[in-house]
Amino acid sequence: MKLLEDRIREEGVVKEGGVLKVDRFLNHQMDVGLFREMAKEWKRRFAGAGVNKILTIEASGIGIACIAAEEFGCRVVFAKKTQGKNLDGELYTTQITSFTKGRVFDVIVAKKFLGPEDRVLIIDDFLANGCALEGLISIVRESGATLVGCGIAIEKGFQEGGKKIRAMGVKLESLAIVESMSEDGITFREE
Amino acid sequence: MKLLEDRIREEGVVKEGGVLKVDRFLNHQMDVGLFREMAKEWKRRFAGAGVNKILTIEASGIGIACIAAEEFGCRVVFAKKTQGKNLDGELYTTQITSFTKGRVFDVIVAKKFLGPEDRVLIIDDFLANGCALEGLISIVRESGATLVGCGIAIEKGFQEGGKKIRAMGVKLESLAIVESMSEDGITFREE
Repeated sequence: MKLLEDRIREEGVVKEGGVLKVDRFLNHQMDVGLFREMAKEWKRRFAGAGVNKILTIEASGIGIACIAAEEFGCRVVFAKKTQGKNLDGELYTTQITSFTKGRVFDVIVAKKFLGPEDRVLIIDDFLANGCALEGLISIVRESGATLVGCGIAIEKGFQEGGKKIRAMGVKLESLAIVESMSEDGITFREE
Repeated sequence: MKLLEDRIREEGVVKEGGVLKVDRFLNHQMDVGLFREMAKEWKRRFAGAGVNKILTIEASGIGIACIAAEEFGCRVVFAKKTQGKNLDGELYTTQITSFTKGRVFDVIVAKKFLGPEDRVLIIDDFLANGCALEGLISIVRESGATLVGCGIAIEKGFQEGGKKIRAMGVKLESLAIVESMSEDGITFREE
């Protein structure tokens, strides 16, 4: 998606250790005008798929998931990274290793919000090694819901996540796929 | 706001220890159609105030803040609860005690996203003892931005937060103010 690629080129910052900072518009400050265009693009790519629920994970997936949910006319469920007092009852649980934070999270979704009647689109801001996405996919499988596919804002094409998820037969639509990046610039995979 | 009060009555669950669970539509599963109506109501209550930035805090504030930002035609910044690798540079920091999680968080906002040119509306899902809101207000003050006011979804009117924030002279608009709640029912403050 050219609009997103342009924003990454203009406002993204490549840091040491394979980190791409897009906090100006995606995951700290959030440009909801851009989110709306991304949401329309996911809607185009998953048209007719009967999506009736969007699943994401806190925190930075929530904004894009909510705007996307308006396009699909459905609700969002966000997976939580720890168990607070407010979340009891029956839970789907999985573990996810965070690349950014360098630790393992327990991730939970209340069972009452995901079941066999759901046709689920998973939305997240980043795909790198794929751990978060694999965790969310395992929750969808466990729930008996149908996984329609995954919509990602930025995929790091030089890491293993995208290849792994596509090899599972999952329809994966990343709006920008970074092929390589350095302080000199960022190149994207051609669509 | 009657629409929100009705949803709380229909789908909210009162738990021991003063906990009101609204995870069916607000902070685990999210009904973005309801969020849109809430956003329009905040826009009405803060009309003409020149809001050009919305500040919220992860995680459950993000969804309502993003939908509200579309109504105001502005960007969102969400305060983060811990410092990850991705967030360096100059930071505003404060500490917030979470009622729900029973612990203290460091909360940070990158300085580049909040400054004297900003007219800030703070959005959050809950107001109880007011700690989170006080923390966000202190960040706005430190940044030199103008605090236009605070838009809250659900205020627990029987806790101290609302009184404290209003006594500071802050325009606080809560869409539903719970006066009392028990397993027998929930009563709201009249508008």
